[in-house]
Amino acid sequence: MLEDSTRNAAYYQAILGNKEVFSGKTVLDVGAGTGILSVFCAQAGAKRVYAVEASDIYQVAEEIVKENQCEDRIEVIHNNVENVLLPEDGKVDIIVSEWMGHFLLHEGMLDSVIRARDKFLRSNGLIFPENATLYCAPCRVPSLNEDWKNVNGVSMVSFSKRLKSHSLSSPLILNVKPEDILSEPEILLWVDLREATLEDLNSNKLRQLAVVDKSGRYQGICLWFTCSFPSSTGEPVVLSTSADEPITHWKQTVVALPADISVERGQPIAYDISINRSLEDSRKYSLEVEMLDPDDVTHPEYCTCFKTKCILTRAVLEKYEHDQMQE
Amino acid sequence: MLEDSTRNAAYYQAILGNKEVFSGKTVLDVGAGTGILSVFCAQAGAKRVYAVEASDIYQVAEEIVKENQCEDRIEVIHNNVENVLLPEDGKVDIIVSEWMGHFLLHEGMLDSVIRARDKFLRSNGLIFPENATLYCAPCRVPSLNEDWKNVNGVSMVSFSKRLKSHSLSSPLILNVKPEDILSEPEILLWVDLREATLEDLNSNKLRQLAVVDKSGRYQGICLWFTCSFPSSTGEPVVLSTSADEPITHWKQTVVALPADISVERGQPIAYDISINRSLEDSRKYSLEVEMLDPDDVTHPEYCTCFKTKCILTRAVLEKYEHDQMQE
Repeated sequence: MLEDSTRNAAYYQAILGNKEVFSGKTVLDVGAGTGILSVFCAQAGAKRVYAVEASDIYQVAEEIVKENQCEDRIEVIHNNVENVLLPEDGKVDIIVSEWMGHFLLHEGMLDSVIRARDKFLRSNGLIFPENATLYCAPCRVPSLNEDWKNVNGVSMVSFSKRLKSHSLSSPLILNVKPEDILSEPEILLWVDLREATLEDLNSNKLRQLAVVDKSGRYQGICLWFTCSFPSSTGEPVVLSTSADEPITHWKQTVVALPADISVERGQPIAYDISINRSLEDSRKYSLEVEMLDPDDVTHPEYCTCFKTKCILTRAVLEKYEHDQMQE
Repeated sequence: MLEDSTRNAAYYQAILGNKEVFSGKTVLDVGAGTGILSVFCAQAGAKRVYAVEASDIYQVAEEIVKENQCEDRIEVIHNNVENVLLPEDGKVDIIVSEWMGHFLLHEGMLDSVIRARDKFLRSNGLIFPENATLYCAPCRVPSLNEDWKNVNGVSMVSFSKRLKSHSLSSPLILNVKPEDILSEPEILLWVDLREATLEDLNSNKLRQLAVVDKSGRYQGICLWFTCSFPSSTGEPVVLSTSADEPITHWKQTVVALPADISVERGQPIAYDISINRSLEDSRKYSLEVEMLDPDDVTHPEYCTCFKTKCILTRAVLEKYEHDQMQE
């Protein structure tokens, strides 16, 4: 995970690019791991950093803190953040955390960050990152489909079918090529870390009416996320795990479809997608996708799809807008 | 594994580039997996192919055989090759197999290929591949060392030490950059598949006196292998897993050293390396490396290292050679 330079660079820029924010402040690092974010905060001028780490990796964090001469400012605490008590008024000015799991929430640590916020963050405190967005869009998945039609002259479609049926039971984590994303994305979930509650994360659902912007094979739903950090300069730092951006260890997530559907530019695709917390293990999430007939779904008022009704509505709206501008 | 296009291409070229060898022949595919090599053989004109696969993946092989219209030539046999009996005289003209494990032997299937050869191969039969060579050379391992000296301004050497101590217990499988190989390689093991016995594979040892050809940090011993296929055209096809060649799923193997030693061009490095079959599980192998003082080891007669004795000997030998040429 430490070898994820995109991730490291985003936190580095968000923290060390905002020294005026960190200078003289107290910080809580939730799930500090090796302590790298805590060292960033100390280097950015934080007066005191509490690096809370429940696993045995806290020992590494202690060594890294010493190695970077930060023992006077960083205190490594081996505990769950839920059990921790902090000195003085027990409050901090800033919470930092790298809590994101696959498709944002799966096996992540956002619950702990929210609990830490409610318990420790001063009323005007900041959270790094401050918000997170989970996107989805229909996509091609050649590695489950056409890549197997000709493997050095051998047709291996029956093998790809087995791979696919395997991947129907749990989402795939893989690098999707930007050209395999078939439409503009939609937002499945937006989390404001200053306000979100645990209940907000239990179940989220979206109905997307996507309009295909390139012809190709519709074979799955791709999910990725971005996180934004507070900034004193106004230009927020964004960590993005989109297919357009450099690869991260999160890659992208794909829910594969059982069928391989040919689509063309302008074609509407409709589906329901939901992300639900597991009842057995609150840190686990499942994704559910249901394909819908785009004729059974309400299209947006201004829809760019190629259905006659939408073309006509678009023409009327465009004429109206044109007339308005003429007046 | 099927996504290893370097591997597939080598077998494809070795089999379909030698149709005159395969035409009308009977072939045994040892550990057929998905059956891709068997289909190659049928496409190359083999009269009959026995695709022997002990695991449940034999079902995929059966489907792939049908999908490629080879049912009349390929028979998938769900069994260990050791238990199989073949029809007619029970012999085949050619054995093909993709048996190679990490550092050639570890968790590979060479024993089965050797047993199949002794039981099934006609006296003038061919084996694809026909021989295999395991190489080693001293190398840099930046991912266990200097990569951790500065991670976005944070020193994480204590973390790399833990990684390293972890990797001392078992060899690392990783992609080594060609520039991280510090000397010409030496051969730890050469296997002629037409002659090798199971005993030949139990324990092999090499003492290498390597002469460093670039200055750098000596941090491990890198191992890789090549396999050569018989050819009717005289130009053998070689599958290489060297750091110089395109990446394969085997990558390279590295035995990490506990210390990080600075070396310079011309410096001799001496070590003993051995590859030993596990007593508990005959398919597993361990690697053992022992560092030696290059002064305690006999250098070759013509040694390119920078030790005074070798420089002097070299001068004498070169003068002698020069004088011989003058005469």
